[in-house]
Amino acid sequence: MQAVYNIAEICARHGITDVVLSPGSRSAPLTLAFARHPAFAGRLRVVPDERAAAFIGLGIAQATRRPVVLVCTSGSAGLNYAPAVAEAFFQQVPLLVLTADRPPEWIDQLDGQTIRQQNLYGRHAKGAFDFPVDTTHADAKWHAERLVNEAINLAGTYPAGPVQVNVPLREPFYPKAGEEAHYEQDVKIIRDTDYPFPAGISLPGALQDAKATGRVLIVAGQHRADADLEVALRTLSAEHGFPVIADVIANVSGEQDLLHDEILNGSAAENPAYDFALHRHDVFLAGLSADEKAALQPDLLITFGQSLISKALKLFLRGAAPQQHWHVQASGPASDTFRRTTKIIRLEPATFFQALATAELPPADVPQQVGYAIQISANSTESGTPTGATHWLSSVPPGGWPAGLGDAWHKADAAATQLLADFFARPMPEFNEFSAFRLALNALPIYTALHLANSMAVRYANILGLPHGRHIEVFANRGTSGIDGCTSTAVGAALAQPGRPVVLLTGDVAFFYDRNAFWHNYPTPNLRVVLFNNHGGGIFRIIDGPRQQPELDEFFETRQRLTAENTARDFNLRYFPVSAFAELEAALPVFFAAETGAAVLEVFTDSKTNAAFFEQYRAAVKQAFS
Amino acid sequence: MQAVYNIAEICARHGITDVVLSPGSRSAPLTLAFARHPAFAGRLRVVPDERAAAFIGLGIAQATRRPVVLVCTSGSAGLNYAPAVAEAFFQQVPLLVLTADRPPEWIDQLDGQTIRQQNLYGRHAKGAFDFPVDTTHADAKWHAERLVNEAINLAGTYPAGPVQVNVPLREPFYPKAGEEAHYEQDVKIIRDTDYPFPAGISLPGALQDAKATGRVLIVAGQHRADADLEVALRTLSAEHGFPVIADVIANVSGEQDLLHDEILNGSAAENPAYDFALHRHDVFLAGLSADEKAALQPDLLITFGQSLISKALKLFLRGAAPQQHWHVQASGPASDTFRRTTKIIRLEPATFFQALATAELPPADVPQQVGYAIQISANSTESGTPTGATHWLSSVPPGGWPAGLGDAWHKADAAATQLLADFFARPMPEFNEFSAFRLALNALPIYTALHLANSMAVRYANILGLPHGRHIEVFANRGTSGIDGCTSTAVGAALAQPGRPVVLLTGDVAFFYDRNAFWHNYPTPNLRVVLFNNHGGGIFRIIDGPRQQPELDEFFETRQRLTAENTARDFNLRYFPVSAFAELEAALPVFFAAETGAAVLEVFTDSKTNAAFFEQYRAAVKQAFS
Repeated sequence: MQAVYNIAEICARHGITDVVLSPGSRSAPLTLAFARHPAFAGRLRVVPDERAAAFIGLGIAQATRRPVVLVCTSGSAGLNYAPAVAEAFFQQVPLLVLTADRPPEWIDQLDGQTIRQQNLYGRHAKGAFDFPVDTTHADAKWHAERLVNEAINLAGTYPAGPVQVNVPLREPFYPKAGEEAHYEQDVKIIRDTDYPFPAGISLPGALQDAKATGRVLIVAGQHRADADLEVALRTLSAEHGFPVIADVIANVSGEQDLLHDEILNGSAAENPAYDFALHRHDVFLAGLSADEKAALQPDLLITFGQSLISKALKLFLRGAAPQQHWHVQASGPASDTFRRTTKIIRLEPATFFQALATAELPPADVPQQVGYAIQISANSTESGTPTGATHWLSSVPPGGWPAGLGDAWHKADAAATQLLADFFARPMPEFNEFSAFRLALNALPIYTALHLANSMAVRYANILGLPHGRHIEVFANRGTSGIDGCTSTAVGAALAQPGRPVVLLTGDVAFFYDRNAFWHNYPTPNLRVVLFNNHGGGIFRIIDGPRQQPELDEFFETRQRLTAENTARDFNLRYFPVSAFAELEAALPVFFAAETGAAVLEVFTDSKTNAAFFEQYRAAVKQAFS
Repeated sequence: MQAVYNIAEICARHGITDVVLSPGSRSAPLTLAFARHPAFAGRLRVVPDERAAAFIGLGIAQATRRPVVLVCTSGSAGLNYAPAVAEAFFQQVPLLVLTADRPPEWIDQLDGQTIRQQNLYGRHAKGAFDFPVDTTHADAKWHAERLVNEAINLAGTYPAGPVQVNVPLREPFYPKAGEEAHYEQDVKIIRDTDYPFPAGISLPGALQDAKATGRVLIVAGQHRADADLEVALRTLSAEHGFPVIADVIANVSGEQDLLHDEILNGSAAENPAYDFALHRHDVFLAGLSADEKAALQPDLLITFGQSLISKALKLFLRGAAPQQHWHVQASGPASDTFRRTTKIIRLEPATFFQALATAELPPADVPQQVGYAIQISANSTESGTPTGATHWLSSVPPGGWPAGLGDAWHKADAAATQLLADFFARPMPEFNEFSAFRLALNALPIYTALHLANSMAVRYANILGLPHGRHIEVFANRGTSGIDGCTSTAVGAALAQPGRPVVLLTGDVAFFYDRNAFWHNYPTPNLRVVLFNNHGGGIFRIIDGPRQQPELDEFFETRQRLTAENTARDFNLRYFPVSAFAELEAALPVFFAAETGAAVLEVFTDSKTNAAFFEQYRAAVKQAFS
């Protein structure tokens, strides 16, 4: 038992604070090791469904930016972690997965709850360690303590990820009654320094390249909020005229350094200058002709972060054929997402862009003012009618941008922003998901940790964008883009940040898939779930392909009958069902009100109406941009 | 698309009839291939939660004894299959797992729903194949068709198991509107013969060994019902005096060749001679002293089948140190479960035991009558008080068995049977799980396919045994002994055998873990779920170790508050809550009545009362056998 107790001690010394465990007999020594250690008091949580438990751990790790320990028993328990482990691997979230196991001599001997647990997650873990089964020999003790350090360091260093430690345990699993836990204070501790980010770097070659090409486009993939990064990007946008394109999951909203007062008194929302980045690419790129796209083509594309949501942006960049594509990633394997990668820059994005922003580049002919929201040509804003009268490329450049790449992107973005405003200003349509989603999005509380479920929620949000001035941070399981743990991840976030509103926007298939997210005894009064229930996989009625097939209803859309009413009853969630705009608008402020307890707002819409309305949106885009 | 359509054609030609698919976009060609093929009409089912879908497929495969096809989309979908795949691997159930994937060039390029799917199940699949991404070349077409044949053959041949075919698919995923599916009739078909079981074999050496040792014990692990096997075992028991010990999951109940009339008119239940096997080992072995166990020690142990439930039996056999241990298993890796294996016999169990039963062994001095139920010493049966007045070993041997191994085992079994009868004949205790479980078990309809969930349900059933004369077949996920898919497996069984009662006996943690078993649109009117809800992992209060720890309540037992009422409401299940013996006895006939629709009988008990009552049972065992 002592070697197992020491695992908890080493975790504590590395600053780990949160443990999610699922009950079991084989895992009892691990359970006791963490339960009795004061470092985890109140932050050791029991979640019976391992699939949910692992995603809850993921949510906690995202929120705390520290590795979270998962503990499960032997057998298939650890396999239920697999979806969350894969998500953590691709999303680069640190998890330390402790799987209790039978001792090696009893594997494959027809004993119960025994599978082949070594390296259980294969190529979806950063590493897998085998804890020694005998720890009496001094070398084995050294080995045991060393590998726990190695596993924690591996999980936490860039790119972070899940690491398994398989812990074989012989009986007895339990100390004698009254026997106290002892944590050795001289356990081995090895600290790894994370990637050694240079404080000051010079990139003369890179800068010359950037300067020479002139047409530089910066694109942000999924990334956690990072104030230093934003400051650097703002400078590059404002002073060098490089357009910065950011998906909603990139957390480049320009609000990382907003002052608390500006948020509270609402003045931030009035100052669009904060948001230097462009977010409407999913709108206009879907509508542009090939010729028009030419105006937007970069010579040098610089990217950072993980995946993009916008398929339109990916297709555009794959077709745009920039002369150079640099991807900024400190370490680890880099993807050739657009088939044009020419250089991988081994720096943290913030470090690189700071260097680029402060470099001695000749000042470009750039505008003094960098706010672009809803202020393009007068003739398209006054009436609430669709734009189109003025072609977007010939509209007055917002903020007086000079001709060039930045000018074109900002014009397109402004036109798309206007298009959205106009489109939703039309006379009220039938109640539908897209419109309802927009209302919910605009009602988000300040400082929300916003969790966007796959598959339609994250897409709607990427089209519509976030409301300004609220300092919203966005999370989505885009590592694997699965629907399997979106709710659990949000629950983990709510547990980890009790003082902050955590809002999940989700669809019915993702929601009911992962109902066990709520199946535990920990209150999440700060959690709000807006559930868009169209009784099936509505996305299949919206995307091309399945909607043309006779099998749509039965085999793609999967009509499902559930509502959240009984689930809300099961888990003591306040429940707000709405099926009309008036109901939704009345419910939103009550639903989002602070300190009123966890709640589900279920928005009932009709799948066919939703598809028809989305078709209208597509038509409006086409009209505006072609 | 043609190569993908041909997968469905090849499956159909191999006699596969059932497909469980979970919706997705990448998997659309596979979905359409099976949806449009007439061989799968009405037996292609959509289940959104892949974890439940795979276990439902497992249940169908168990019931039909044919491979079942699973189809899922790319990304983490396939990882949610992992628990069921591992269960199928260790339980030897054939599954053909078709995982749609992105084409290889787009793996690890930050595209959505993309993981590393090749050989996704590692050492928990019998095999993994990569379907070719380009099938235009004639060699590739041959490859594609050949590997589907190989995969089906591998899944189905002994020992059966899960096989993955990863199917990379490039866009477009959908045929043009109105384009019809075409299934090539000249697809390649390769048929594998299963293990060539010899029709007549001779085992002179083995038989001499068996004869020489004299003290032969046969132990049956988990096995599917097999009438030929039972006939052979009955002969060995009756004519050679070899005791046959069978866990409840061994399906050696002696009832495989009961006549339908005997079952219907109840006469079978009156004739205990059918059940030649001994089932009370879990009772008496837990109570015997080491000295007394000596009387039960075999010289030759012959085993077949998969795992045993009874820990007492496993420990006994590990300690018993038979001179020889033969394990009968046609092929595949064999386990040394009792650390005493000396010979692995590569034959189907039925084939081997038939050969042994019909061999020219000199007739042993064996009884004419082989019924042993409830007829031992007079002084222990009359009063309903515990046995113990007569020591079990000095009791009158039932059926007049000669001294020797069979005599000792039959005496112990009879004494344990009597002990159970006496114990439950005591004045009614407080309402408790063990007693309620016995009432439910005794009320099972004839021909029930009985599904026993992990963890307490399968243990209670193994102690209590099945009611006689009902031809009950038993299933349990003892490959991995997980709680993760017990309900889904029973749902699969109910779907596959609509004319047969399928009864699941389960606990609350297993039940709520796998509620998504019901989340689909297929009725299961023949399904009855008896849910023993003690609001937590009651097993931890019963087994030694955790119940002595101060962490019992919070970290082991995992108090959970749910009842099935809302779940029943969600899925239109008739709902019977009971919390007293009278309520339970009144509910059982109504609940089990045929053609009344799927139902949940929720038996509420108190965890502490259950533990106390089980303690009384243990005390009675100790008193009787020591």
